[in-house]
Amino acid sequence: MRIAIDAMGNDNGSQVFVDAIKMFLHDFNDVNIVVYGKEEEFLCFKDQDNIEIIDCHQYITMDDGLLAVKRKIDSSMSKILTDLAENRIDGVVSAGSTGALLTLSIAKIKTISTIERPCLLATVPSTTDRVFQYLDMGANSDTSAHNIHQFALMGQIYSKIVFKVEHPHVRLLNIGVEKGKGDKLHKEAFELLNNDDRLIFGGNIEGRDMFNGEADVIVTDGFSGNMTLKAIEGTAHFAFDQLKSAIYSSTLSKIAGLLLKKTLVQVKDKLDYSRYGGAVLIGLEKPVVKAHGSSNAKAIYNALIRLHVIIKNDTINILKRELQ
Amino acid sequence: MRIAIDAMGNDNGSQVFVDAIKMFLHDFNDVNIVVYGKEEEFLCFKDQDNIEIIDCHQYITMDDGLLAVKRKIDSSMSKILTDLAENRIDGVVSAGSTGALLTLSIAKIKTISTIERPCLLATVPSTTDRVFQYLDMGANSDTSAHNIHQFALMGQIYSKIVFKVEHPHVRLLNIGVEKGKGDKLHKEAFELLNNDDRLIFGGNIEGRDMFNGEADVIVTDGFSGNMTLKAIEGTAHFAFDQLKSAIYSSTLSKIAGLLLKKTLVQVKDKLDYSRYGGAVLIGLEKPVVKAHGSSNAKAIYNALIRLHVIIKNDTINILKRELQ
Repeated sequence: MRIAIDAMGNDNGSQVFVDAIKMFLHDFNDVNIVVYGKEEEFLCFKDQDNIEIIDCHQYITMDDGLLAVKRKIDSSMSKILTDLAENRIDGVVSAGSTGALLTLSIAKIKTISTIERPCLLATVPSTTDRVFQYLDMGANSDTSAHNIHQFALMGQIYSKIVFKVEHPHVRLLNIGVEKGKGDKLHKEAFELLNNDDRLIFGGNIEGRDMFNGEADVIVTDGFSGNMTLKAIEGTAHFAFDQLKSAIYSSTLSKIAGLLLKKTLVQVKDKLDYSRYGGAVLIGLEKPVVKAHGSSNAKAIYNALIRLHVIIKNDTINILKRELQ
Repeated sequence: MRIAIDAMGNDNGSQVFVDAIKMFLHDFNDVNIVVYGKEEEFLCFKDQDNIEIIDCHQYITMDDGLLAVKRKIDSSMSKILTDLAENRIDGVVSAGSTGALLTLSIAKIKTISTIERPCLLATVPSTTDRVFQYLDMGANSDTSAHNIHQFALMGQIYSKIVFKVEHPHVRLLNIGVEKGKGDKLHKEAFELLNNDDRLIFGGNIEGRDMFNGEADVIVTDGFSGNMTLKAIEGTAHFAFDQLKSAIYSSTLSKIAGLLLKKTLVQVKDKLDYSRYGGAVLIGLEKPVVKAHGSSNAKAIYNALIRLHVIIKNDTINILKRELQ
């Protein structure tokens, strides 16, 4: 298995990749790693047989527009996706610009023939032990009910294969639980989901219940999915900001805050799920995992593990077969 | 000024209204209160000249469907809105079902002639001292760009009159900050907002930055508005649930948690802004304030104060005049 890493265009430089690769290869010895980045930054690996460095000097920045993204044909991201399309590697992890990764992946790698639009899937923790697959996180800004239906099918299969959930329960993210709630798009999507015998569809779910562990797959259109995700992010930051101010307001609470510091960081990390395991661009003929731009080594390591599980379980071939 | 309270159909019974009225009349002596509820539950006010009780025995439950809502013509909510429409009272606070309040308000009270659709406005705190007006919270499930434009104008005028912000800055809630981001609806809304000289339009804002105190008005369609709101609610609960589990995980953190208990409750309350001041149904010819169904006395008191400010400042007449 050849797992490739786009080691440029992220916020934290190349050291996070070096550390992540070391951790990953310590745990998995059936894998070859191909790194797309500046050769001189990965010299520590130069005598290792299972690591190959593809020397890149051009990369896509977070601020590059669509035109720049397409023009930079020597960028690490462009090269890695070309190699993925041409079967030289088996899967990609990138912590570069999401927009660029979406654009280039969709341009270079075939979409599964029965799928109209690929989308972004995140795995999100809940208050129980149950995690859920959340899609579309925002790969599409205008989505049809038919697209949402396909996202649900992909989420269900992904949950089965990658998370070994035997009978994944699917819910539609909406503004009310009853049938007939929501805008035209979500009413139509509800009907499609409800009429598909392949799905175990439990109806609508509201954002306030998302984290209650009531579903294995929560599906929505890309616009709402992205809106909701950013609201979650904003609220988590707001909550911790307020907590911090409150803790600093008195000596007693400062002491308590110090005692709780580790605990607070743990909770914050759990909420910041975008950093764990990455988001999967699902619906393409090859696996692409998007790690957060400001991923640390642990987050890159988690994204590598996610990709490893996806490849090992032949996820994309099963997806293709089941979606025929 | 005659301020009316629909004292039925909420989660916490009539005592919260009794307490709220006492607090409110202690602070404001220029107001008459009209209570729509069971007379026997408000006997403590029977000798008070500035309080009138309209005896009601029927009320709308949180589970009543649209048909039941319309049929219950003797419900406290139906009666209070009829009296508001017929000028017997100057404004209404209700903690009953949001759906019912929307349906009955729109049916009984005229919409401002230049406004196509009324919407729900909430006042939300930020990490700075600046609060922002957030609309549409979810009165409409299918919204046009033209509707969003009108919501923005109403939000701006409301911010000026009720919160005394001289030059309110308006932002459009969207999935990216750049012009051209978002779905068709939000791209169209962006153009309308951007081309209106009456607005100080600062462009798009993402949910993750909502709480940063960068705007006085954040406008969006009712579907996204409601989605976002419920995600905020879900995240806040999730964060505190995780924090609680983490605190209970060791003796040391339990002690720290005890020391911080008051602080944690304060932060939780601040995030749960739906309980403070209520949401205003804006765009109608009369003021209707929706308090949260599980409001305590303080929350009802805050909703009464909000309504008082709206009436005292002649908000609706100014809205009508400025929207001509």
